[in-house]
Amino acid sequence: MKNIKIGLIGAGFMGKAHVVGYSNVPKLFWPAPAVPELKTVCDIDEETAKDAKDRFGFKEWTTDWQDIINDPEIDAVSICTPNDSHAKISIAALEAGKHVLCEKPISNNPEDAKAMADAAAQASSDGIIAMCAYQYRRVPAVVQAKKLIEDGSIGDILNIRTTYLQSWSADPDSPLSWRFQKKYAGAGALGDIGTHVIDIAQYLAGDIEEVVSNVRTFIKERPVQEGGADLLGTVKVDPDAAKEPVDVDDEASFLANFKNGAVGSIEATRNAWGRNNYITVEVHGTKGSILFNYERLNELQVSFSEDPEDRRGFKTIYTGPAHSYGEVTWNIPGMNIGYGELKTIESYDFLKAIADKKQPSTSFNEAYKVDQVCEAVLASAESRRWEKVK
Amino acid sequence: MKNIKIGLIGAGFMGKAHVVGYSNVPKLFWPAPAVPELKTVCDIDEETAKDAKDRFGFKEWTTDWQDIINDPEIDAVSICTPNDSHAKISIAALEAGKHVLCEKPISNNPEDAKAMADAAAQASSDGIIAMCAYQYRRVPAVVQAKKLIEDGSIGDILNIRTTYLQSWSADPDSPLSWRFQKKYAGAGALGDIGTHVIDIAQYLAGDIEEVVSNVRTFIKERPVQEGGADLLGTVKVDPDAAKEPVDVDDEASFLANFKNGAVGSIEATRNAWGRNNYITVEVHGTKGSILFNYERLNELQVSFSEDPEDRRGFKTIYTGPAHSYGEVTWNIPGMNIGYGELKTIESYDFLKAIADKKQPSTSFNEAYKVDQVCEAVLASAESRRWEKVK
Amino acid sequence: MKNIKIGLIGAGFMGKAHVVGYSNVPKLFWPAPAVPELKTVCDIDEETAKDAKDRFGFKEWTTDWQDIINDPEIDAVSICTPNDSHAKISIAALEAGKHVLCEKPISNNPEDAKAMADAAAQASSDGIIAMCAYQYRRVPAVVQAKKLIEDGSIGDILNIRTTYLQSWSADPDSPLSWRFQKKYAGAGALGDIGTHVIDIAQYLAGDIEEVVSNVRTFIKERPVQEGGADLLGTVKVDPDAAKEPVDVDDEASFLANFKNGAVGSIEATRNAWGRNNYITVEVHGTKGSILFNYERLNELQVSFSEDPEDRRGFKTIYTGPAHSYGEVTWNIPGMNIGYGELKTIESYDFLKAIADKKQPSTSFNEAYKVDQVCEAVLASAESRRWEKVK
Amino acid sequence: MKNIKIGLIGAGFMGKAHVVGYSNVPKLFWPAPAVPELKTVCDIDEETAKDAKDRFGFKEWTTDWQDIINDPEIDAVSICTPNDSHAKISIAALEAGKHVLCEKPISNNPEDAKAMADAAAQASSDGIIAMCAYQYRRVPAVVQAKKLIEDGSIGDILNIRTTYLQSWSADPDSPLSWRFQKKYAGAGALGDIGTHVIDIAQYLAGDIEEVVSNVRTFIKERPVQEGGADLLGTVKVDPDAAKEPVDVDDEASFLANFKNGAVGSIEATRNAWGRNNYITVEVHGTKGSILFNYERLNELQVSFSEDPEDRRGFKTIYTGPAHSYGEVTWNIPGMNIGYGELKTIESYDFLKAIADKKQPSTSFNEAYKVDQVCEAVLASAESRRWEKVK
Repeated sequence: MKNIKIGLIGAGFMGKAHVVGYSNVPKLFWPAPAVPELKTVCDIDEETAKDAKDRFGFKEWTTDWQDIINDPEIDAVSICTPNDSHAKISIAALEAGKHVLCEKPISNNPEDAKAMADAAAQASSDGIIAMCAYQYRRVPAVVQAKKLIEDGSIGDILNIRTTYLQSWSADPDSPLSWRFQKKYAGAGALGDIGTHVIDIAQYLAGDIEEVVSNVRTFIKERPVQEGGADLLGTVKVDPDAAKEPVDVDDEASFLANFKNGAVGSIEATRNAWGRNNYITVEVHGTKGSILFNYERLNELQVSFSEDPEDRRGFKTIYTGPAHSYGEVTWNIPGMNIGYGELKTIESYDFLKAIADKKQPSTSFNEAYKVDQVCEAVLASAESRRWEKVK
Repeated sequence: MKNIKIGLIGAGFMGKAHVVGYSNVPKLFWPAPAVPELKTVCDIDEETAKDAKDRFGFKEWTTDWQDIINDPEIDAVSICTPNDSHAKISIAALEAGKHVLCEKPISNNPEDAKAMADAAAQASSDGIIAMCAYQYRRVPAVVQAKKLIEDGSIGDILNIRTTYLQSWSADPDSPLSWRFQKKYAGAGALGDIGTHVIDIAQYLAGDIEEVVSNVRTFIKERPVQEGGADLLGTVKVDPDAAKEPVDVDDEASFLANFKNGAVGSIEATRNAWGRNNYITVEVHGTKGSILFNYERLNELQVSFSEDPEDRRGFKTIYTGPAHSYGEVTWNIPGMNIGYGELKTIESYDFLKAIADKKQPSTSFNEAYKVDQVCEAVLASAESRRWEKVK
Repeated sequence: MKNIKIGLIGAGFMGKAHVVGYSNVPKLFWPAPAVPELKTVCDIDEETAKDAKDRFGFKEWTTDWQDIINDPEIDAVSICTPNDSHAKISIAALEAGKHVLCEKPISNNPEDAKAMADAAAQASSDGIIAMCAYQYRRVPAVVQAKKLIEDGSIGDILNIRTTYLQSWSADPDSPLSWRFQKKYAGAGALGDIGTHVIDIAQYLAGDIEEVVSNVRTFIKERPVQEGGADLLGTVKVDPDAAKEPVDVDDEASFLANFKNGAVGSIEATRNAWGRNNYITVEVHGTKGSILFNYERLNELQVSFSEDPEDRRGFKTIYTGPAHSYGEVTWNIPGMNIGYGELKTIESYDFLKAIADKKQPSTSFNEAYKVDQVCEAVLASAESRRWEKVK
Repeated sequence: MKNIKIGLIGAGFMGKAHVVGYSNVPKLFWPAPAVPELKTVCDIDEETAKDAKDRFGFKEWTTDWQDIINDPEIDAVSICTPNDSHAKISIAALEAGKHVLCEKPISNNPEDAKAMADAAAQASSDGIIAMCAYQYRRVPAVVQAKKLIEDGSIGDILNIRTTYLQSWSADPDSPLSWRFQKKYAGAGALGDIGTHVIDIAQYLAGDIEEVVSNVRTFIKERPVQEGGADLLGTVKVDPDAAKEPVDVDDEASFLANFKNGAVGSIEATRNAWGRNNYITVEVHGTKGSILFNYERLNELQVSFSEDPEDRRGFKTIYTGPAHSYGEVTWNIPGMNIGYGELKTIESYDFLKAIADKKQPSTSFNEAYKVDQVCEAVLASAESRRWEKVK
């Protein structure tokens, strides 16, 4: 079994998640496609970087991401920095012949995303892997949904409806992290969480052709956040801090037409009190329907028109050993996977792609397509009419 | 206590529902505002009309609705015919000085709806009541939602999302009743069920200002239905019957901007396998959220930002004696009301409006506004851009 | 179609429910087995009786139940009085040749219950119908459960677990109605609500052979209730009222062995804050499982071992036209029936039994068996060991 | 920060879970109480042991558990072997001055359990930690339940009801692993899963005083399993294999009286088709109720009597950073923890107990008490009457 030496860039919340993922791979998937070895961790904040070395079990730390690019021993790089740096780091890593697992959204503008997709295509010919970390399409229940669509169990897709609702920043006093600033994040709720459900929608129903949207910023300024790392809902709120403008959306909804003839509606918001990390997908086909709700991460609901009329309804399937990534779901259904196991699945697929020299999804090009949908959504918010996805 | 003599026009599924409603009023609400007396039932099909007399307990039957208008004894008329006849019957009844409870949608075109609203306004000055039967805004849980909005419990409304999903006609072999023909119904899923959730949305969040839509007809022809009455999901399907075109939508979704600044999304479809009579409403405000799902007719879910962080979440309130129309919800929460009790609430409010000489909601003018939203939805489907509601 | 003249004895909450039931029968079931005609209502409280005449639409009123027994015109009697009077009234009615629909539990002691079962058996030979009003076994979803058991869909029953949890009297200041006094009620939670789930359990899994129990009275005294009628959760609580002892249980749970080899556990409590009218049934068989929860009155959940492993799970069937009593569930699933429709089903079955001259379930003898289970439960609470059901 | 060298005995499903737990501790909890170092893994099957070394990242492997006891470098031992070997290994480890984390149930008979509790008490005086791995009492939602009970939020406990329902071995052809043999397992469903819910019940409501039970073995023989490791639901079923008797229960239910006056009912079964790892807890107190369901691992439901009557109901709290072990629940509620994170919490508490020299729960003595409840349950199944817990 091959060892893969890993460099991690960005040691905040998401870096932690990648490390949990890598670390669990051989424990949960065995034989593992490759055994990850944690070589170097990078964070712009020196204390965070040092700390991360001990905490996560890396051999070395640095504050300069180029140290990782320049380290010939490192095989693969995880990029967990704010969106604005994804392009330069990814492209440098790919050009240096390193496999790249880059967090989503792939970039904060479509030009950068295009350049990344091109770099990935180029590197691909040398067997270099590039993958964008849209983990929710890897949820076993979502993969099962895909299977039921592909094997015709629900017929032709007519309609797909997805939402991603959160509330961790619904309080106007919750601080202005990089996620609320266009220069770092590109877009707001749309880019941060909307992209996840766009990715799922395109994974299940194919490419979106055109959209019409409604985009808002309800909370127009926020207190400036102290310190470095992005702590999402665990940050301390200081209502007396100076406030600065939010220049990205906190609520975006749009209607979509898919290339295959289906219609759809997609919504992302940060203002949904009572919703925490609420991702839903509902697909209606000519022969059945499928539902997924991340609050029920281990479940898929299915309904088939062919059931006898007095036994028709939604069935709740509990994912487990009989489904994709069954090894990670412990030894019986219902023991439950969580976010840690989900990131383990992602790491597994990344390592497997490297071992198999086979590009995984979400490829950089697919991720670029997600960004193009976002562009069309933002364009439609300006033009107030349907816009084609480029 | 006053007796109110009732004439019923249209003795199909919906006529039955009105009769159950009237009949239960004094049994469940006591003292009743007025005691309904079932005088005359009309159906264009003679057998149906005769049968309805015995079945429903009317004194007389007729096949000519003008007999009811011309009967000086009759105080109030329930109109349960296909949409295209609502205007002429309602206006005639109002002009004859009769109170009118007319099924929704108020008409199959806005011109007729406008004429009806004008007739109602005119009759109103003589103490004549006109009410459109949007029963779902009377669900005790929906009324409780309205209270929580009005008393500020969820702050300012940011977003309202409603869906009405059905499947009783998702099968292409389910027959072409009047509901699938423009000349009778005006619109399809949009008019039949979308209007209900438009009504709820406007009830909770105020008037819609503009919309952008996506409207489809996935099932383009259906077998011709034999016989008269509209049987919804209980009709016998004859796959060998000759087919004729469906000229109304079976799926409509739209984004909305409300006059008060909130955004919204609304969807109605007849193609949702596994969904039966699935009405959902989710409202996010600056201080909390509200959910309603008709599958949980007796429940309202609420979440408040002011709860302590470790005790925050959605609470499921079971409606009962402590809520509006508590008398009808039997003597403890959780005994459950059904569609019968819901129509009883509607009849109660109609009789109460008559007794109190106070116009009830949904007034004909409010119902006309619902039709105008539909018009804008259909216009936007043509223009492919945002359209103002007139 | 035959008319059946009805006398109602006891015009409180439950009398109201019977009237709603009778009144809706021809409206919802057509052709009706018989058309009920409301002849005479009796209540010991004169004002209540008079009021009930107008409210419910009876022709006459009385305060003496024997007037109803002695009225030769009356065909059928509904008995909605406290438990202690069931025996004398039922037996008198049966002896007078009247059909009887008696509320549950059939009596407040097994001796009376035995006498009632004997009287019913005697009357039966003259075509007289006697039925005990255990309405919950008539819920369409429960009837569907029975069908799935009978057709072998879940194999042999191994285990049945039922609960009936309430909270309307969990507050110690909620008053001492007849339901909390042994002389009127016989038993407490066990007799009032436990009997319902015993009836369902025996309906689904056959007779109980032996039990072992735990029976408690947590709230040992309550303020004396003013006035007559039993108002359940809608009574006004007067915390300053004088208190008197509660001499019946408010919590009873027991294990059971069924004659067919299955095991079971049954619980009834009035102390479950947050539970309103919470009836649950879970049945495990060798080939599948069934769940019912009255909070989901219109749903049945089923799981079958024979489903492919990756599509196995609980399916939620929404009851409707394709199920028993489909007429009453309106014209598509998901329109929802409530308690009113449930009592309509009960009235329908009673009228149909009369028309067909065929004894319905729950017969007085079956209801007597429920009482015998209660006796064994109370005996086990004393003996602290398993007790046979006599 | 201290390093703790770990020896693992038993490298099957549960050994894997312990390793995931240890490995994640510093990644999720930081600063960690101690950093675990995986020193030696032991399995009686050589191939499994060797494999485990690489897979889990241990430095050494062995097939003789005494190598671990005799290794002076090893600080702490995880015991993940079948129940019959818990006592000898635990006692040897404790006597060798090693901290012990032993899987549940603590033993397969009360005598051994008593000896283990004594050994733990003895070792405790030298600062040696002994902990039994009842992980479900560490679920953040369950800990929150405990807090609400302790701070009086639901008043005095009246009733606690727990179930643990599974189906992975409901098929009679699923093989006879050690879990179905008395000599290895002690008891069946009662010992394997019933102990978990006994532990939770005693954690929340205090000690059980007496029980009365019903214990069954519905599936009386099973095909013999090939190979070594216990694979739970992922084993391959061979219906043609020779069958041998099952001499432990597969279904146990009992009623309980708690020392504090509460009543309870507890059930464990392996025959519940449709239930996977279905653990439920419902607690009714004088002022409120609490529900937990492991299918909703990240949620706790609470209902309080003090809420205004029109806003009363069950609230679903999503556990996250604001609750116990908030670090492990990622950075916002609703990201979801799974079984991996749950075992991480357990490892964290074990390491923290070592670092703090403070005995954690479930202590060996508490675990012994769980075994004594099982003894009383089995005794009652024989005597057919209430039995005191010794």
